[in-house]
Amino acid sequence: MRDFATMSPAAVRSMIRQGKWAKPTAGMANGFTQANLAILKKELAFEFLLFCQRNPKPCPVLDVTEPGSPIPRLVAPGADLRTDIPKYRIYRHGELAEEVTDIVKYWEEDMVAFLLGCSFTFEYPLMNNGIPIRHIEENCNVAMYKTQIPCIKAGRFEGPLVVSMRPISEKDVIRAVQVTSRFPSVHGAPVHIGNPESIGIKNIHQPDFGDSVTIKDGEIPVFWACGVTPQAVAMQVKPEIMITHAPGHMFVTDVRDEQFGVL
Amino acid sequence: MRDFATMSPAAVRSMIRQGKWAKPTAGMANGFTQANLAILKKELAFEFLLFCQRNPKPCPVLDVTEPGSPIPRLVAPGADLRTDIPKYRIYRHGELAEEVTDIVKYWEEDMVAFLLGCSFTFEYPLMNNGIPIRHIEENCNVAMYKTQIPCIKAGRFEGPLVVSMRPISEKDVIRAVQVTSRFPSVHGAPVHIGNPESIGIKNIHQPDFGDSVTIKDGEIPVFWACGVTPQAVAMQVKPEIMITHAPGHMFVTDVRDEQFGVL
Repeated sequence: MRDFATMSPAAVRSMIRQGKWAKPTAGMANGFTQANLAILKKELAFEFLLFCQRNPKPCPVLDVTEPGSPIPRLVAPGADLRTDIPKYRIYRHGELAEEVTDIVKYWEEDMVAFLLGCSFTFEYPLMNNGIPIRHIEENCNVAMYKTQIPCIKAGRFEGPLVVSMRPISEKDVIRAVQVTSRFPSVHGAPVHIGNPESIGIKNIHQPDFGDSVTIKDGEIPVFWACGVTPQAVAMQVKPEIMITHAPGHMFVTDVRDEQFGVL
Repeated sequence: MRDFATMSPAAVRSMIRQGKWAKPTAGMANGFTQANLAILKKELAFEFLLFCQRNPKPCPVLDVTEPGSPIPRLVAPGADLRTDIPKYRIYRHGELAEEVTDIVKYWEEDMVAFLLGCSFTFEYPLMNNGIPIRHIEENCNVAMYKTQIPCIKAGRFEGPLVVSMRPISEKDVIRAVQVTSRFPSVHGAPVHIGNPESIGIKNIHQPDFGDSVTIKDGEIPVFWACGVTPQAVAMQVKPEIMITHAPGHMFVTDVRDEQFGVL
């Protein structure tokens, strides 16, 4: 069996492109940044880019393709976003229509692909700092919640901030803020520490997306802006067509996580 | 005489709007971020925003208005970009056509205004760290140079990186990197330290823009990405109309410099 963790990003993408891998990408090409995908028609692209620019914590833009080009020149010039992700979701008018393993036949000449940072990138540095990540320990999805914090509107794009929550031991909270602050391109510092109700979360044990995780005595819930936000906001605009990665089936870039550290 | 340094940003803008101030804004409303202005038609706005997203060091976006709106909602919701800058330049097909003190009659319903970070914001923290700024000591403009470093192309926008140079004493160079790294929204860390020829600058005493400054023994030239870059690049596209601030006549935002610190 191949050791997926030590494969190069190009080798991972080639395996996916050849149809030999259609599963989640966690743990593959370790140390290289994985990204969320959102594809929209050019007609909506300016507003969406503006939304991302105004809301950089939930929508950290890593790359945007030229209209009609499926090549992410900044983060993986040798890749093709139509084939190099294991699983895609096609949404029509805001409703999930299909799940497919490539989007060659859906690609149109006026499409623009957005690659957005994902929290995988800051979870490694947290663990490297001795801060355990509960949903990894419990082998489930991160817990995600809709908040009452509004995003800043851009054109037709508006809606609440979605956050992910990681329980952090009191002694580690300050270090967790420091470590994730280094990575503004992948959500950066937390948006809230402590009382879930302050940001409109009624029941911490009932996440809106993902799985509920154990919060132990002496731990504080710490909330980070989440990449589900731009997808949720875009769905509400009910675009004629929107294509995303399937959850967990990310795009593996050629950029090392550390290269996104601002210091 | 009013003490301009301690005036609020709103008071400075109001004075400008009333036609009572048409001079440079350096030293006004100290501690509040001043910004570069670039106004383009919507038809070019997506490509220009993409160019900024791909080249964040020379083009750090602080705010982008909705098409047709002159209100910078993020950084100064009470301001009007048509009247609140002391002096504007109107460029037609890439050529300077006029210099005016308001742009009310030039504003069109399909215009988009970009506010970009400026190096004023990181010069204060440098001085606060005991690092003198030569062009301020010599009461002249910062020295700026075209380099051989290409920006990353976006649509029709392409061209070389323009840098500003500050001579820094050897003992202060590391601290200067640290201090400016905290402020990625206003050009951030330097792009080059030392030998000017490595980045294509033939004669350090002949800047392409601004003024030549003294480099003393024991000082090293340190180069930062410069906000002249996006203007120079945009001119080459020869847009039908483009409006910018006049050099030194900046937009004063409501945001404190420290709020742009990432840590």
